[in-house]
Amino acid sequence: MGMKNHKHGGDIYQHRDVIDFSANVNPLGTPKSVREAVRQSADHVEHYPDVRCQRLKEALSAYEQVPESWLICGNGAADLIFALALAVKPKRALVLAPTFAEYEQALSSVGCEIDYVYLKEKEGFRVTGGILSQITDSLDMVFLCNPNNPTGELIQRELLIKLLERCRKNHVLAAVDECFLDFVPDGRDYELSGLLGEYSNLFLLKAFTKRYAMAGIRLGYGMCSDAGVLEKIEEVTQPWRVSAPAQAAGTAALLETAYVEASVRFVEEQKSLLRNALTSAGFQVYGSRANYLFFKGPEDFYDICLREGILIRDCSNYQGLSRGWFRIAVRTREENKQLIQLLQTFTKGETSWQRRL
Amino acid sequence: MGMKNHKHGGDIYQHRDVIDFSANVNPLGTPKSVREAVRQSADHVEHYPDVRCQRLKEALSAYEQVPESWLICGNGAADLIFALALAVKPKRALVLAPTFAEYEQALSSVGCEIDYVYLKEKEGFRVTGGILSQITDSLDMVFLCNPNNPTGELIQRELLIKLLERCRKNHVLAAVDECFLDFVPDGRDYELSGLLGEYSNLFLLKAFTKRYAMAGIRLGYGMCSDAGVLEKIEEVTQPWRVSAPAQAAGTAALLETAYVEASVRFVEEQKSLLRNALTSAGFQVYGSRANYLFFKGPEDFYDICLREGILIRDCSNYQGLSRGWFRIAVRTREENKQLIQLLQTFTKGETSWQRRL
Repeated sequence: MGMKNHKHGGDIYQHRDVIDFSANVNPLGTPKSVREAVRQSADHVEHYPDVRCQRLKEALSAYEQVPESWLICGNGAADLIFALALAVKPKRALVLAPTFAEYEQALSSVGCEIDYVYLKEKEGFRVTGGILSQITDSLDMVFLCNPNNPTGELIQRELLIKLLERCRKNHVLAAVDECFLDFVPDGRDYELSGLLGEYSNLFLLKAFTKRYAMAGIRLGYGMCSDAGVLEKIEEVTQPWRVSAPAQAAGTAALLETAYVEASVRFVEEQKSLLRNALTSAGFQVYGSRANYLFFKGPEDFYDICLREGILIRDCSNYQGLSRGWFRIAVRTREENKQLIQLLQTFTKGETSWQRRL
Repeated sequence: MGMKNHKHGGDIYQHRDVIDFSANVNPLGTPKSVREAVRQSADHVEHYPDVRCQRLKEALSAYEQVPESWLICGNGAADLIFALALAVKPKRALVLAPTFAEYEQALSSVGCEIDYVYLKEKEGFRVTGGILSQITDSLDMVFLCNPNNPTGELIQRELLIKLLERCRKNHVLAAVDECFLDFVPDGRDYELSGLLGEYSNLFLLKAFTKRYAMAGIRLGYGMCSDAGVLEKIEEVTQPWRVSAPAQAAGTAALLETAYVEASVRFVEEQKSLLRNALTSAGFQVYGSRANYLFFKGPEDFYDICLREGILIRDCSNYQGLSRGWFRIAVRTREENKQLIQLLQTFTKGETSWQRRL
């Protein structure tokens, strides 16, 4: 990896003046209350942030219905992925392929050996019961992402419980990243926070980044009922991980329940339009249960979009994928329209840039 | 370590409504331009921060007179201390005692064995030539802090160069934390940035936190001419370490040269008043070349101050120190006056809280 190979979504700094479909943040934009909290935090930035994140944790505890002592906050969920790997120092871990690249990067940072569960196109990139046999006592840890990024496919609740059970028996820590679950209409049915007390080997990851469109602020949190794991994370990280603006923004954000509900409805409505356009263009759409769509298209589709000022996520650098796989976020009505228009040129058998030649 | 034992300066969240002498930030407060940059950043927080910190690095490169490729930014200097330890994974390292606790904590996070250079009261807590013999090929890394925290004593330039030389010969990476050098009137004479090209085994740490009183924002940077070290840090950390508000605030801050110059003058003037008051009270003051004073006082001086609404840094939890050692930051004129008044009661042989009984 390393800087040279950084190829995530949301890199609007290398590609200026584009419509950004590459970052999966809430298309309704940052709530006003969150922006206002950031503005007001500017008045007090001479002070160190609260190392205990007390006000934020109180709000989170009420929001998640878990004790404050089970919570840990970080400089984005990605910060906690690395902190967790450093705290646990697993020798061998299991990750999905394809999935969010940071699990593997974090595991490698502590010299962990990695086994992959290759998700298959013919199975719609779904995690199946086959994964269970890969959970053995030779493993220390497994990273899951539900719904998975970039495929957008959900892991069924029954399978998740079987997984947790088998992990517990084999002393395997299960880290489940639910960062995108907020955008799934029946997401509550998949949430594992209610099982934290029962499974002390479960570590849940959540982000404010996507739910409240505040990616620039860096704020994520983890939940675990094993105090030892959380203490170990505190031991291997700096005490001032979470900035004062982030703590203020997060505390304000948690009151935005109507905004989140409206977001889910909006994403569903617009996703269906985008899905239809992709399908009509002859592209194969998979999963896509969250606020993004995962599909197979022409190998040069990334370039075609970029020429039209549209930035999408080329997924060819994901473990287990190759050229021709893409991910697009659900954006605003206006932005989605522009992408749909571009897709319609495929339906007609010509791309708009070809017409211009 | 761990949360329960967190005992740093600046914890105004556990001690509300106090005058905070425990955090060493610029007493002139955050520059207006920096606050304004944070406020303006609120308008764009839906976007991920620039993973390359491009604008900030351009400004830093001009400020520090080093190539952009030698720079790395982090979520506070503390973030880079942990990242560096994780990148290098030293087996054995040398740290001063007493010094900033995060070096040891970061080294321990990767299982590193630690040797100490115990600074001696009878030598005024100065680092002497004796350190050189402790630099051997059994070491992988050394952490220095110049001026040292909490003692405020400087390491002489000649000794620093001998140290770098000996480190290079023995393949030891020398991390030198210059976070407080900005407050030393002749600080430029001690700065090592000019030697980065010559010594690729030198890693310099700097912070915005103290220089611009923006501790809540979290922004620090490192400088090193060894591209391998910087690449390795990128490999073992998330790409979005530095928030958008921090990047904006830092870029604005670097233009505040008159503010920094005024700060140095103000700190010198006020520090001399505080030093006189401490000395008149019969306390022994050491080092104190930066924006804080380090001294030996009555064992209950922390409690005496807190009863008067003044929070100071009890240094008894530093490796190599015990009860009766304290650190105070230079604060505003008004705040310093209050501490000086408290100190005057010692000169008179009674503390104000004793008078009240």
